[in-house]
Amino acid sequence: MRAIVYTAAGGPEVIALREVPTPEPGPGQIRVRVGASALNRADILQRKGAYPAPSGWPTDIPGLEYAGAIEALGTGVTRWRVGEGVMGLVGGGAHAEFVVVGEQEAVPVPPGMIWRDAAAIPEAFFTAYDALSTRARVAGGEGVLIHAAASGVGTAAIQLAKVMGATVTGTSRTKAKLEQLHELGLDAGIDTSKRPFRDQIVLPVHVILDVLGGPAFADNLAVLSPRGRLVLLGFLQGPVAPDANLDVILRKRLEVIGTVMRTRGPEERAALAAEFRDRVLPRFGAHVRTDLPMQSMGTPVRSDPTLKPVVHAIFPMTDARAAHEAMERNEGVGKIVLAW
Amino acid sequence: MRAIVYTAAGGPEVIALREVPTPEPGPGQIRVRVGASALNRADILQRKGAYPAPSGWPTDIPGLEYAGAIEALGTGVTRWRVGEGVMGLVGGGAHAEFVVVGEQEAVPVPPGMIWRDAAAIPEAFFTAYDALSTRARVAGGEGVLIHAAASGVGTAAIQLAKVMGATVTGTSRTKAKLEQLHELGLDAGIDTSKRPFRDQIVLPVHVILDVLGGPAFADNLAVLSPRGRLVLLGFLQGPVAPDANLDVILRKRLEVIGTVMRTRGPEERAALAAEFRDRVLPRFGAHVRTDLPMQSMGTPVRSDPTLKPVVHAIFPMTDARAAHEAMERNEGVGKIVLAW
Repeated sequence: MRAIVYTAAGGPEVIALREVPTPEPGPGQIRVRVGASALNRADILQRKGAYPAPSGWPTDIPGLEYAGAIEALGTGVTRWRVGEGVMGLVGGGAHAEFVVVGEQEAVPVPPGMIWRDAAAIPEAFFTAYDALSTRARVAGGEGVLIHAAASGVGTAAIQLAKVMGATVTGTSRTKAKLEQLHELGLDAGIDTSKRPFRDQIVLPVHVILDVLGGPAFADNLAVLSPRGRLVLLGFLQGPVAPDANLDVILRKRLEVIGTVMRTRGPEERAALAAEFRDRVLPRFGAHVRTDLPMQSMGTPVRSDPTLKPVVHAIFPMTDARAAHEAMERNEGVGKIVLAW
Repeated sequence: MRAIVYTAAGGPEVIALREVPTPEPGPGQIRVRVGASALNRADILQRKGAYPAPSGWPTDIPGLEYAGAIEALGTGVTRWRVGEGVMGLVGGGAHAEFVVVGEQEAVPVPPGMIWRDAAAIPEAFFTAYDALSTRARVAGGEGVLIHAAASGVGTAAIQLAKVMGATVTGTSRTKAKLEQLHELGLDAGIDTSKRPFRDQIVLPVHVILDVLGGPAFADNLAVLSPRGRLVLLGFLQGPVAPDANLDVILRKRLEVIGTVMRTRGPEERAALAAEFRDRVLPRFGAHVRTDLPMQSMGTPVRSDPTLKPVVHAIFPMTDARAAHEAMERNEGVGKIVLAW
């Protein structure tokens, strides 16, 4: 099969399309012909040599999510049939023509949804759902603050937080992105290009989804309401919090919760997939926007309460370099999809 | 009534015994004649001017816990009768002849237990139970690390963690204290007088009860197993964690949980009391050690699985200064009790 391979650690120039062995499904596994995948910051970090794949996953083929049709079944598979549309998370290897996953780790593609929309769902919505629901236990009437709200996880979290009955504040360094996010349900947009978010909070903050990291730690703790939860999802600004004062954590009885999807084992992956299938998947409408031309900007639309994958741009898998470059320009709202 | 009053912020010399107005129980409240109370670090901090009482509680009378007999009922009280023995937490004012509390915030004194043992229960066992069970969700087979394990909360936490089926590691700067703690159920004692605890861990650590604070933050995160929980209860070494690296929180999917008992409102206090009454109180045996002479060292005894208050020394309330001085010498195992 063909796959994206990182030939070395470095810039987009190390990305190559190579012929590699097609993986065989073992017992309880399925092989999926990848219709589309999407790009994540982790793929960029891995390309730079800063985020090696966890053991058991391809070391040189990136890609953490997929949508496509089941093409072969391992022995003992009972849940699926060949030809069914599935999507899900992997620890790596999804920027390829085929991926092999445990049958319990995949979820069905919502009815009528094409691969390039479905591929924008798993990492963003699994991560946001897990963070908001399982880890932060968001309750109706609470306020959620989402940093880098225009990211894939951010756009998913805005929608999920609204479904949970929360109010949503989102930050971005780009004012134009915030305007688009209001259509997804954002209640208060904070432009951090000129002033710190800490000085612009207008709604209560009970839960924060943070991807900024150490330098934002003190301000995050400062804006949280008593008994608030700070979920750490990434470190865009680095992991070090200079001279962190833990007193506020005790005094306001806060929780700081670290989470990461990639290193989870098959059982945890399966449990999350089962919960996602039951609680989140039914909320994706049967008919979704499918009219995005390749490499175009996606305009999020939100006229009803169904969840929608938010796609910023679509690139052919054969032009993965351009997709990496687009992510590093950091200019869009939502996911960058790679499609065969 | 007579009460301990801090006449100013300062050393033990600011402690005075004064005549003050006896508090009246309002609707739904009970007045308790305090048989005994106990001393907490918070009382010392308050004396030094560093920890003012939360609003709604006496500003100049210390004391966070009590055991004694109900002496008067406010209107509408249905749960109790005059003469019954109760114990519980207050936001302040327990170093006095009487306290007034909401009827739902008190729990019965275990059958046959004298005031001076019962007074050693609330702060230590409520705090340890809340931290281990409610906040850290300790499961059987997990490992718990308890810092300052010879403290009141530490000695309660050792016993409760064992009841929960956990293994227990405890730290102390005094080797002799660790030997006493083995009788309470401690599995591994770590003497931190010569080497950092980080280098002496032999059992897995899924949950930490920490009272050290900022300087221990990095080592605490380092010794936690994946998905571990660090509960912050105090800052004996100060609250600042120099250049905290949050990466380990994300990578190991840790939780940092701040908790404090004193500032909780009546509803939360009542909910915790109800849970404590149902789940913890029945585990205190009906017959407990009552042979401690005033001002003696208590030797913890653990020959059965019942919970036991651990009393280091008992002082007359009229000699509260000596009790403060004893706590500041930091030499005992368990609680320092103040008895009328």
